[in-house]
Parts: sequence; C-alpha cells; structure tokens
Amino acid sequence: MKKIEHIGIAVKNLDESCNLYERLLGVECYKKEFVASESVNTAFFRTGENKIELLSATDENSPIAKFLDRKGEGIHHIAFDVADIRVEMKRLRDEGFVLLNDEPKLGADHKLVCFVHPKGTNGVLVELCQEIK
Amino acid sequence: MKKIEHIGIAVKNLDESCNLYERLLGVECYKKEFVASESVNTAFFRTGENKIELLSATDENSPIAKFLDRKGEGIHHIAFDVADIRVEMKRLRDEGFVLLNDEPKLGADHKLVCFVHPKGTNGVLVELCQEIK
Repeated sequence: MKKIEHIGIAVKNLDESCNLYERLLGVECYKKEFVASESVNTAFFRTGENKIELLSATDENSPIAKFLDRKGEGIHHIAFDVADIRVEMKRLRDEGFVLLNDEPKLGADHKLVCFVHPKGTNGVLVELCQEIK
Repeated sequence: MKKIEHIGIAVKNLDESCNLYERLLGVECYKKEFVASESVNTAFFRTGENKIELLSATDENSPIAKFLDRKGEGIHHIAFDVADIRVEMKRLRDEGFVLLNDEPKLGADHKLVCFVHPKGTNGVLVELCQEIK
C-alpha cells in the first residue's frame, strides 16, 4: 500500500452533491466518469495528493444502490494506491484477508481495482488500485 | 482545506484492530494516545502524506461508543488539514454548513479540531484540524 488514492462517498444525486463538495472543499470537480463495471456515475475532486470520489448508482443492481438502501449516504470505501495489484492481492490473501475479486477488474480513472471484504477490516471496504500505464 | 490529514475508523478492540491494520497496511502503528475530550483511545498509522486513526471508546458516553451502537465498526470521519481553523470555520458557516462546535477544541495528535454536521455533507462526518505549533 503506497498511499491513500481516494475516498469514495456514496450519494443519491451526483449533481447536487458535486456542487456541495465544491463548496465544502473549495475546489472544482475535475472529472466525471461513468463506470460500467459498477453501474455508477462518479465525480472527482483533488485534495492534496488524494482524491475524493462521489458515486451515484445508475441502476438498482449497482453496489452503490444497495449501499444507499442499507446504510444511506456516506463514506463507501477507502482506496489505496499499489505498485503491483497482483503482488498486493497475494500478500493480503497470505495475511488471511478475504478479497472480493479473484482477478483485478477495470475501475474508474484508468485503474485496475480489487476490493477487500469489509468483514475482515473492521467494517471498512478497502479498494486496491493500480494505475494503468 | 489543504489536504486530508487522516481518516478515523471506529473499532471495538483497539489492540486487535491495531494488529489487523499493521498487517493490512504493512506499516507499524507509530503512536497511541488517549483523548480526554472525546473519551477515546487512538492508534495512528502513516500512509503516504495521510494517517489512519483507529478509535475505541473509553466509556459509554464517548461519541465512538454511540457510533458503534448505531452503525457498528467502520469509517467514522474524514479530517482535513487547514491552515487557520477559525478562518475555515467562518468560510463554511458562510457557505451554509452547520458546525458541531462553536469554538475549536483540543483533539488528538496536537491539533485544534472542529466537526461539520454530517446532515449537510451527504452523511460524511468532516473534521477540520489545525496543527498546534
């Protein structure tokens, strides 16, 4: 784990929340992106060396729709930047953590991603992400 | 808001979670600290320019005890580093955000802190913190 890459926040209305986070953080959203693999629309903000990612669901089968139903709006995950996602996945499996993906998949913002089961991390959904060169 | 200073995670058993996060992050806890103003024990980890702060309650009136009762273990707050907490508190009040503290109070890790009401930030508890020189 090199550093926190971003923090993902689940919201109901992306446009309204985008405006709200621009006022909260004092910076403008620099990118909006649809991520087909998760059925989400995303909006990104820079803060220091990290990003804040707002996520809204594009259909009811999206993990974000299920999260909103169960828990309401709020912090959804922490993503860590890793140099080699497969090496980090093996290291975590060897440490006894349970991964939600057998293989890395394509995430937002040109990344390969994999999630760690929150039951093994005190309820925190952890994402590993590796920049695609 | 200069950058994310730390992410706070509410846990039941600080020692067990400390061991778990050392294995997850691949770094050692560098500080444990009791914070009287919040009735919490804390443990800190460095990751990039940010920190992860684990928090456990030291009595039933701690905000962390109430959070664990209501939501269970998980991410509790995001803290942002600010240059001048009073200036940032005024800016956020003027933007319509509701602050949970009228005046900055003493937090963990040599910081003046103030919380923003999560009802106005899509369910995210935001902490402002200014380093005490």
